[in-house]
Amino acid sequence: MSRYWSDIVHRLTPYVPGEQPALAHPVKLNTNENPYPPSPRVLEAIRHELGDTAEALRRYPDPTARKLRETVAAHHGIHAEQVFAGNGSDEVLALTFQALLKHDKPLLFPDITYSFYPTYAKLFEVDYRTIPLDDSFAIAVDDYAVPNGGILLPNPNAPTGRPLPLADIERLAAEHPESVVVIDEAYVDFGAESAIKLIDRYPNLLVVQTVSKSRSLAGMRVGFAFGDPALIDALNRVKDSFNSYPLDRLAQAAATAAYEDDAWFRDCRAKVIASRERLAAELTALGFEVVPSAANLLFARHAGYDAATLALRLREKEIFVRHFNAPRIDQHLRISIGTDAECDILLDALRGIFSAYVG
Amino acid sequence: MSRYWSDIVHRLTPYVPGEQPALAHPVKLNTNENPYPPSPRVLEAIRHELGDTAEALRRYPDPTARKLRETVAAHHGIHAEQVFAGNGSDEVLALTFQALLKHDKPLLFPDITYSFYPTYAKLFEVDYRTIPLDDSFAIAVDDYAVPNGGILLPNPNAPTGRPLPLADIERLAAEHPESVVVIDEAYVDFGAESAIKLIDRYPNLLVVQTVSKSRSLAGMRVGFAFGDPALIDALNRVKDSFNSYPLDRLAQAAATAAYEDDAWFRDCRAKVIASRERLAAELTALGFEVVPSAANLLFARHAGYDAATLALRLREKEIFVRHFNAPRIDQHLRISIGTDAECDILLDALRGIFSAYVG
Repeated sequence: MSRYWSDIVHRLTPYVPGEQPALAHPVKLNTNENPYPPSPRVLEAIRHELGDTAEALRRYPDPTARKLRETVAAHHGIHAEQVFAGNGSDEVLALTFQALLKHDKPLLFPDITYSFYPTYAKLFEVDYRTIPLDDSFAIAVDDYAVPNGGILLPNPNAPTGRPLPLADIERLAAEHPESVVVIDEAYVDFGAESAIKLIDRYPNLLVVQTVSKSRSLAGMRVGFAFGDPALIDALNRVKDSFNSYPLDRLAQAAATAAYEDDAWFRDCRAKVIASRERLAAELTALGFEVVPSAANLLFARHAGYDAATLALRLREKEIFVRHFNAPRIDQHLRISIGTDAECDILLDALRGIFSAYVG
Repeated sequence: MSRYWSDIVHRLTPYVPGEQPALAHPVKLNTNENPYPPSPRVLEAIRHELGDTAEALRRYPDPTARKLRETVAAHHGIHAEQVFAGNGSDEVLALTFQALLKHDKPLLFPDITYSFYPTYAKLFEVDYRTIPLDDSFAIAVDDYAVPNGGILLPNPNAPTGRPLPLADIERLAAEHPESVVVIDEAYVDFGAESAIKLIDRYPNLLVVQTVSKSRSLAGMRVGFAFGDPALIDALNRVKDSFNSYPLDRLAQAAATAAYEDDAWFRDCRAKVIASRERLAAELTALGFEVVPSAANLLFARHAGYDAATLALRLREKEIFVRHFNAPRIDQHLRISIGTDAECDILLDALRGIFSAYVG
């Protein structure tokens, strides 16, 4: 608290990201990172940009990230004017709140969802209303048929991993032509269907993606929004009133290269999906209830063990999973999909914890 | 214009950064980049972070940039808790507007200054009043002795390059204990005195710096704010409500390494200053009036030639300088300091243009 703070600072509830432990070899299943490195082309592209002296770094990057946007647009079969690039999808979402979701009527999003959404709403003073998930953590799009100034859904949802059929998203966009409908597809590549194919038909539909999960580039901070040029224009106007050059040269080079290696992307994705299905089966065998997931994470609870305690016991073994102390989900753990070896370490640790409880 | 835009989007006047020409060998003196590459340690540090597979990039960076902040704090003889790190000083300034400069009374800044300031003010709906520079483009700190909700000055000022004595800044901080006084030191290393040494004594003083100019890392987007922990805390609260991880892994590594090589920094700075003095003398000999500069730029006008036309003629020769179509300065050019060779190309081109006018 300080007399120098702007009023808004007093009212914020900052987001708390998952812990980044300073350990040599943690089993880090708490921030949904990809267990595999990025495409070798990423390394090549960064080295090329650096050259022998890193001289290129003395110059500002392209403020519009044109080459990156063109590459990603080509990948999705759309135009560069339908693509906005930002400093991670968190920044893209923040700019979206400011540029497109602040209206007289409240923004709608699920009660159980990415916990950054209410934080953005407070920062930008966006009125919002949460719509409860059903008891199986599913989103019922008909529940959103209320007056609103925007709708925001992750697909798959976070932290549950539950996907929503594309037909539901299309219905939402069609039934709310006055509202911007934002689909946050941070996890879409692991099993849900992207709504990018709908943006030509629905000028109110904005799709947000990231290179952090399926393209193994969480460390480089690049995210996108896809939508009608009028929506992209709003994001650019806010971005150019905030920070002209949000993406540095190496981030632009890295993300571009990641999109140029589709085979690597598909291969890593397939491995993560296979590990997820295996881990889901093993956790179920251990007595966990596991939410059906289309993401690189599992959301699970065990009737016999308190989730916060389990997370603590795992942490003592340098195994990190995420626990949210929030209504309806405080008995769940969110477990990122690691390599099979990491999943095995987790499973062994859980077996050890469970037998100690019994003993 | 779109019905989907938040109200604020309609009222923005986005900043327009200097052109980044897509040419093989432009003489680029329009965005105040450093003509010399960053320290070789920057390349080394990036390579170390990448390793053989760039595997580190799959993991999120440290959201608090602790190692970077500790390194920069040690460099300045202050504590890491007095340092905020952001995605370029443009982002740091934006967050400062939001966190510390929005109050009932108007923010004060000069009428001729960094043209991003009024843009930020519009984005965050910060009431502001501009204080005219005198006819020699000097800031008179006594002109700021009016009721205000904050004071923002670059030192040296942009786009003029004119420095302000540290005693004036101290007086400003001392005489406005109720207001945050922000000193934007983007260019300070080229000849002005930093106010960082005052932050222990003035809890209302915030100093903003960047690696873009004096540390040759415009391409990596890293900036800082230095001040009392309560001011830094406000910036962190807004940052953590906006984007948890604004600095990617390679940006953190690069900036840290740049601060670890003080000899390189001093050497490049000395070369830029020597080139500036030489160019100022040559421009004066060509009939320009040159504002005394403590930055890596010169602000100059020629009584005989229209500035916009000169900029255009130079651009035809692939020489880029900056012209602002703004009151009081539309007959000036802002010329970044290049290598001596680049300065000579500029001078030759000007001589050619002048003789063509005469002929």
